[in-house]
Amino acid sequence: MTEKPKRPVKGPVDAMVIPRYAGFSTFARLPRIDEVDSFDVAVVGVPFDSGTTYRPGARFGPTAIRQASRLLRRYDPSLETEPFTWQQVVDAGDITCNPFDIETAIAQIQAAALDLRQGNHHLIAIGGDHTIALPLLRATRAGLDSLAVLHFDAHLDTWDTYFGARFTHGSPFRRAFEEGLLAGGKNVHVGTRGPIYSRADLDDDARFGFKVITSDDLDDLGVAEIVRQIRDRVGKSPLYISIDVDVMDPSHAPGTGTPEAGGISSRELLKMLRGLAGMNIVGADVVEVAPAYDHAEITSLAAAHLVYCLLSLFAREAGGDSKQGSWS
Amino acid sequence: MTEKPKRPVKGPVDAMVIPRYAGFSTFARLPRIDEVDSFDVAVVGVPFDSGTTYRPGARFGPTAIRQASRLLRRYDPSLETEPFTWQQVVDAGDITCNPFDIETAIAQIQAAALDLRQGNHHLIAIGGDHTIALPLLRATRAGLDSLAVLHFDAHLDTWDTYFGARFTHGSPFRRAFEEGLLAGGKNVHVGTRGPIYSRADLDDDARFGFKVITSDDLDDLGVAEIVRQIRDRVGKSPLYISIDVDVMDPSHAPGTGTPEAGGISSRELLKMLRGLAGMNIVGADVVEVAPAYDHAEITSLAAAHLVYCLLSLFAREAGGDSKQGSWS
Amino acid sequence: MTEKPKRPVKGPVDAMVIPRYAGFSTFARLPRIDEVDSFDVAVVGVPFDSGTTYRPGARFGPTAIRQASRLLRRYDPSLETEPFTWQQVVDAGDITCNPFDIETAIAQIQAAALDLRQGNHHLIAIGGDHTIALPLLRATRAGLDSLAVLHFDAHLDTWDTYFGARFTHGSPFRRAFEEGLLAGGKNVHVGTRGPIYSRADLDDDARFGFKVITSDDLDDLGVAEIVRQIRDRVGKSPLYISIDVDVMDPSHAPGTGTPEAGGISSRELLKMLRGLAGMNIVGADVVEVAPAYDHAEITSLAAAHLVYCLLSLFAREAGGDSKQGSWS
Amino acid sequence: MTEKPKRPVKGPVDAMVIPRYAGFSTFARLPRIDEVDSFDVAVVGVPFDSGTTYRPGARFGPTAIRQASRLLRRYDPSLETEPFTWQQVVDAGDITCNPFDIETAIAQIQAAALDLRQGNHHLIAIGGDHTIALPLLRATRAGLDSLAVLHFDAHLDTWDTYFGARFTHGSPFRRAFEEGLLAGGKNVHVGTRGPIYSRADLDDDARFGFKVITSDDLDDLGVAEIVRQIRDRVGKSPLYISIDVDVMDPSHAPGTGTPEAGGISSRELLKMLRGLAGMNIVGADVVEVAPAYDHAEITSLAAAHLVYCLLSLFAREAGGDSKQGSWS
Amino acid sequence: MTEKPKRPVKGPVDAMVIPRYAGFSTFARLPRIDEVDSFDVAVVGVPFDSGTTYRPGARFGPTAIRQASRLLRRYDPSLETEPFTWQQVVDAGDITCNPFDIETAIAQIQAAALDLRQGNHHLIAIGGDHTIALPLLRATRAGLDSLAVLHFDAHLDTWDTYFGARFTHGSPFRRAFEEGLLAGGKNVHVGTRGPIYSRADLDDDARFGFKVITSDDLDDLGVAEIVRQIRDRVGKSPLYISIDVDVMDPSHAPGTGTPEAGGISSRELLKMLRGLAGMNIVGADVVEVAPAYDHAEITSLAAAHLVYCLLSLFAREAGGDSKQGSWS
Amino acid sequence: MTEKPKRPVKGPVDAMVIPRYAGFSTFARLPRIDEVDSFDVAVVGVPFDSGTTYRPGARFGPTAIRQASRLLRRYDPSLETEPFTWQQVVDAGDITCNPFDIETAIAQIQAAALDLRQGNHHLIAIGGDHTIALPLLRATRAGLDSLAVLHFDAHLDTWDTYFGARFTHGSPFRRAFEEGLLAGGKNVHVGTRGPIYSRADLDDDARFGFKVITSDDLDDLGVAEIVRQIRDRVGKSPLYISIDVDVMDPSHAPGTGTPEAGGISSRELLKMLRGLAGMNIVGADVVEVAPAYDHAEITSLAAAHLVYCLLSLFAREAGGDSKQGSWS
Repeated sequence: MTEKPKRPVKGPVDAMVIPRYAGFSTFARLPRIDEVDSFDVAVVGVPFDSGTTYRPGARFGPTAIRQASRLLRRYDPSLETEPFTWQQVVDAGDITCNPFDIETAIAQIQAAALDLRQGNHHLIAIGGDHTIALPLLRATRAGLDSLAVLHFDAHLDTWDTYFGARFTHGSPFRRAFEEGLLAGGKNVHVGTRGPIYSRADLDDDARFGFKVITSDDLDDLGVAEIVRQIRDRVGKSPLYISIDVDVMDPSHAPGTGTPEAGGISSRELLKMLRGLAGMNIVGADVVEVAPAYDHAEITSLAAAHLVYCLLSLFAREAGGDSKQGSWS
Repeated sequence: MTEKPKRPVKGPVDAMVIPRYAGFSTFARLPRIDEVDSFDVAVVGVPFDSGTTYRPGARFGPTAIRQASRLLRRYDPSLETEPFTWQQVVDAGDITCNPFDIETAIAQIQAAALDLRQGNHHLIAIGGDHTIALPLLRATRAGLDSLAVLHFDAHLDTWDTYFGARFTHGSPFRRAFEEGLLAGGKNVHVGTRGPIYSRADLDDDARFGFKVITSDDLDDLGVAEIVRQIRDRVGKSPLYISIDVDVMDPSHAPGTGTPEAGGISSRELLKMLRGLAGMNIVGADVVEVAPAYDHAEITSLAAAHLVYCLLSLFAREAGGDSKQGSWS
Repeated sequence: MTEKPKRPVKGPVDAMVIPRYAGFSTFARLPRIDEVDSFDVAVVGVPFDSGTTYRPGARFGPTAIRQASRLLRRYDPSLETEPFTWQQVVDAGDITCNPFDIETAIAQIQAAALDLRQGNHHLIAIGGDHTIALPLLRATRAGLDSLAVLHFDAHLDTWDTYFGARFTHGSPFRRAFEEGLLAGGKNVHVGTRGPIYSRADLDDDARFGFKVITSDDLDDLGVAEIVRQIRDRVGKSPLYISIDVDVMDPSHAPGTGTPEAGGISSRELLKMLRGLAGMNIVGADVVEVAPAYDHAEITSLAAAHLVYCLLSLFAREAGGDSKQGSWS
Repeated sequence: MTEKPKRPVKGPVDAMVIPRYAGFSTFARLPRIDEVDSFDVAVVGVPFDSGTTYRPGARFGPTAIRQASRLLRRYDPSLETEPFTWQQVVDAGDITCNPFDIETAIAQIQAAALDLRQGNHHLIAIGGDHTIALPLLRATRAGLDSLAVLHFDAHLDTWDTYFGARFTHGSPFRRAFEEGLLAGGKNVHVGTRGPIYSRADLDDDARFGFKVITSDDLDDLGVAEIVRQIRDRVGKSPLYISIDVDVMDPSHAPGTGTPEAGGISSRELLKMLRGLAGMNIVGADVVEVAPAYDHAEITSLAAAHLVYCLLSLFAREAGGDSKQGSWS
Repeated sequence: MTEKPKRPVKGPVDAMVIPRYAGFSTFARLPRIDEVDSFDVAVVGVPFDSGTTYRPGARFGPTAIRQASRLLRRYDPSLETEPFTWQQVVDAGDITCNPFDIETAIAQIQAAALDLRQGNHHLIAIGGDHTIALPLLRATRAGLDSLAVLHFDAHLDTWDTYFGARFTHGSPFRRAFEEGLLAGGKNVHVGTRGPIYSRADLDDDARFGFKVITSDDLDDLGVAEIVRQIRDRVGKSPLYISIDVDVMDPSHAPGTGTPEAGGISSRELLKMLRGLAGMNIVGADVVEVAPAYDHAEITSLAAAHLVYCLLSLFAREAGGDSKQGSWS
Repeated sequence: MTEKPKRPVKGPVDAMVIPRYAGFSTFARLPRIDEVDSFDVAVVGVPFDSGTTYRPGARFGPTAIRQASRLLRRYDPSLETEPFTWQQVVDAGDITCNPFDIETAIAQIQAAALDLRQGNHHLIAIGGDHTIALPLLRATRAGLDSLAVLHFDAHLDTWDTYFGARFTHGSPFRRAFEEGLLAGGKNVHVGTRGPIYSRADLDDDARFGFKVITSDDLDDLGVAEIVRQIRDRVGKSPLYISIDVDVMDPSHAPGTGTPEAGGISSRELLKMLRGLAGMNIVGADVVEVAPAYDHAEITSLAAAHLVYCLLSLFAREAGGDSKQGSWS
């Protein structure tokens, strides 16, 4: 937390002037990317769900998360930051993804993400199913020496092909390992639970460099100890955070494609995230919001708060001073 | 139907390039008002529901209608028009309305509508509760010699004060009459039904210049005869069309504030609207969509199609030639 | 329509003083039976669903219908009556029914209905599943020479035992016939549709004195002709009207236990009912509202309007003069 | 209607023995294909939705339609048939479809349908999105000289490629035309409505041999006249009936992928279908049920009744005698 | 816990006689205020939501909470009390509030609450939005020397004007401070979380005499320690408890107006409340239940249990002896 | 964990061949009982809800749980078992229960369960309401010297008659005690909470041999200590586990008949269950899933995971070796 940005920052629409339920939906009512000259962090939608194996519908995730983000406000008292003031955040709209050809879509996402990453901008992708993590990892890893992955999910997502398809929402981290994108021995799954295909899945997963912290571990270890273990493992490595909302219990995230009972709460998840302050986070995604199964926006709301928390973590690195921040 | 517009028209986002579920929500994925130099018709949201007497929530109506309008396409085969090509349609965003002071909100709506009407632009407002019809009528009537109102609604909306309030969603047409906004003897209610306060309400209503065509009349007379009666009564007068979605049966429009059984279908309503081709329509609203009570967007979808039909009616007047229209 | 009631009538809570959504729920916000000295018509709940063969939940029907009736107003312009002024209507609360013993429940309903019928009061029961029609018919038939039944339903409800039970929601009219409650050759089913068990069901049904007017007949004959046929068949016989909300299409009445596609609309149903003005109606029920399957109260709203229409039919017989009616 | 089948027929589970809500779900609680030696008609699920352009989820359609079919009973009084007795109907389970490769899935569907069609069995497919109509048409057309298509749908489904994909839910009938599967000048769309891409779509469509009967025509012509026009056009040609549930209004079929306001009712649709009795129907599908958007099963219920009606039409051809039919 | 009340107490309707789902809805099926001569505690509805800034609908809260309270039973084993026997509890119905004029409504609430408070009766208000806390505090503070506030909420509700309105659901405690209603240094917020407008909000809040215990503190400190801190801070001061249901996580309370992820569970909240036994509680409210966003009554159920717990705390002070309590 | 079964085991349908959403629904896509020669554990549906006192609908529970179990996979990493490989598990379909006569239904359940128990097979019943626990206990106790009950539930379910009925969902364990089915002093309730009828209920309950571990105890003692207490109390006694899903909080299990706020999470419940590894479990039920009140299958999903965990506990006793297990 050192210095405030030199240039004026364009923040969200002022809720004292335009009610929160009014106006076009951008994430947190922030400016569109075309409304500013430059930016520090872009939130970008990736409306793609053709890699889904069970309940589809995450293609409507970005729209739902944007709508649920209207209640977000300027100051984050838990991290003592002003995420919209200390850095220029924009909504970069949605990446166009071919719904009928997974590999084309992956290429489109990779290209668009690379483009947005130009100049070392931070990117937070809102999905979309978990297939999108692979091209996002490719784009994030580009120009870095190594990249650790912190993966919040009920599932490992290191499965292999499914119905002959190499690229689905169950395989991004296996593919990422095979492509040499993952830092050895520095990756972590958090919130894993539920039945899997076989014991061998765990062996494979370990080979890909992941440590598994289960949903049950949360009861036994507590948030603070888990955060300590994550920090120990990742160290100072550049870190990509991938959050599948099904890491939360179906009660907290009904609107998702492959729900598993026994999950964590949004409070636990947010608290873990905040515990990562000071780590070298370089990119992130929040995926698998399937609004057709949501109720009263609870899944989208949780997703919006997760994005906000990620923005707040970036803001701490950007530094700032709330007295001096100009809010729109 | 005489001539196509001279200038190039900016149409909706091309669904062959960007999937319909992707990208920011504007009505029918049309350009925002700030993206074009001039326009012929503006769709504008009026997120206001503080005049509601029963179920509130229409403040979320404009957002829901925009989202449901993503499926609308370029060519209207029933009226043989290209509503997005033969005229420049824009989404003018939402009018800011004070949620805590009805009279302030009414003034805000009136001012914004007058501003958009500058240069004789057509305006289609998406509500919002029916309170908003009054300032919209004021803005539309300005500069005209007279104005007939064609009002689709389960209710008369010519009640007087309610809890001391003169301006609510039950009174816009009484107030309009009192303010001299309504053409004498040329106004029509269509779809009226259900119990009312007293027989005197009907006498008052007739005094304000309205003819009542009930929901039951639809069975007895049929769409064609009703259209004939409307055309006879309105004649060549400039016409404002106000559509409360509760004119439709609750099965077709569950997402509304004061539903009444025994209503009409979206098919009947659209057919009646199309019957108005060639009339001198100068403005319109589609109001009372309350998304919290909607299911699978059926109310919002109907509302989006109603707006499309209104745009198509305007397009017929604008004229055009689909071969020459440049679409985006 | 001759004379107004001699005594002052206590009407609904005044919506100009207490908003419609406020206050305890009685039907149409009318007085409870204990709040008046005498009454003409009682609306009574029968929260019983242990005779249901498929989706249960009609035990919550009375509460839902009362809640949905809050929007009903004083004057019925379609029948030109004041149902709450020209006669004293009360909400008689719910009849206690044993949920675990159908025959006990039937006896409880019969006794309570007989009690309310004392002094020739009219009774409108809100169910509850269709099992309740039998004890209601018994109570209504008592003291009459004969009783015709006009039955709106997707089903015949003249089946025999089911799992050994003689009294279920599929058998009330067979039992009624066997008990000699039904006027010979004067009964009518309206809205029948969908598959049945066997052709023999139709023969039995005819033997019990019913004529079948199907849902399809509505398209072919129209409301007016059907009304004519009903009036012809029933003549001046005392008439009991039993309305299973599943006579309406599932789109209009999703909240019910045994839905069948291809049904009628609430508009058609209300129009048929109003066509019965002047007939010798002596009692009625509106049954099979299962709120757990309803959406946005559309089924309950339709049911509330049906009860209102029945009250209006009674009011026409009671006569009155709106100028003299004192509305609470 | 001449002779009953020679062999004993295995009908649905007896609802007098096992309640309708109990037991495994097969269509109408009919036997699985492996429970009988031979069959006349197979109902088969095609859980595929990867050809969807807007709301996905039709992969769950077959399960939902089976669940909603539990209320279907043995005798169809409107067509005077016993669909489950006069012919052996089975549930052939679900065809396995690759969710990640449309062309593979199409090949799988085609192969499975050809296999089921062996011996001239009738097939009724329950979808799944409309992409599946193409392989079903291929399998049905095999061995026939020509095949007319009667297509109930809000859309034409004769579009061309979409995002480069030739096989989607918008293109089956264009592809079928190109492959020479469609009888020239004998095909009909019924229920078409809503905006389309361009006027040229209509020209293409006519070139493919389709006549368009719009949703509005239903009001103007009535069911009987439309049926007459269909019969005139198709004549004695073998006929494939393809029913997209979005031909119904969103109020009747909210659970679908690309809803359009202004549709027809389930009553109208069933009545039209029944009007086809005696035509040479050789196969059918009911597609685009997306249960995540359904409410209280109303879409699935309508779909189940449509399948029942198709079975009843086949039964009329099979002939039978209800007195002699052995019901399980 | 000293003495039982001298007079006979009228308890809830006996569920052994009338099933819980039957009969008119009063809170916990307790007597209406007009059914008893005197009372100790009144539960009163305040159906007002015109002070809402985001999702409206809390006007339907009192009805929903009453309906959800039908399952409450006589004996509270966690506090070892009989809340309906040791004290006379009544349902005082709903306070009439002008929906169109906030200040009028506030005056109406204040007057009605003062009236009910006559004779030192305890009052538990069920909202309604949080605007109502101000007039309730005024009425409770009247006649007391000081009043501490224990406020469970995701938000501080000490904001200033919003769109020029001084009285909204975001400002009750700032207004209460300004009016001198709050005991200095004795007030507590519990469950606060989520982003706020600015750091200055926290300074203001502290100046108004509040201590903040966040949602996260629950993980770190545990229920017992938080209870200890509350008791320390409030001491023996008369205490008003204000519970906004959004203090619970959206998974536990989806049916509310301004949900925030990361909240507490109903179990934690009830446990904290029970920890307050023996404190000098003089009034309470449970607000912000917006049923249109609820599912399966989970928000209303939690609210009903909160009211029950408050009644149980009052009962402990009233004292009693379950052996002697007469239950209806 | 000693030896693998001698015979080949038929496992679930392979999700690599048939997508999880495809094919007929059996529990976890396991074979039907008629597809194997013998079995070790049977999952059996008991679609009965006529013993329900509040919200009915659990008759649809078995179907919903089967549908939600499609996502379950072969290997349980938390218990290190292969529940579908180390033992032959089958879906035994639904037991036919008379919906109109509770005692007949109880006899039917008892007979069917005894039949399935032949040869010491393990039985896991999926309900249905809690009434079914009595006949299941009778069938399980047959041939055993004693039987302890571990009962997860918000309620004690040791009430006496209700409306004269001795057998309801509130009384199974009182009846079981009276019939001498329960081991003295070895039974435990877990998760109890909420108001009860009277203090005497607790005395009765203790007399029947139950220890109460409340929902609140979970916060105070933690899962590990509660597991220890259960193991201490039950010891080596044969153990029946009865899980009413309402032991979970309404946020986790909205789809149930008598919800109580303040419950436990699915994570806590699963963790407790897993803590029972090595105990002498002989039978189990998971009851009170009422799908009409569920959302996005969250209640059914939790129930499916509970059944899976019970199967996994049985598998540990069966022993096995994942390398040798043949998975269909």
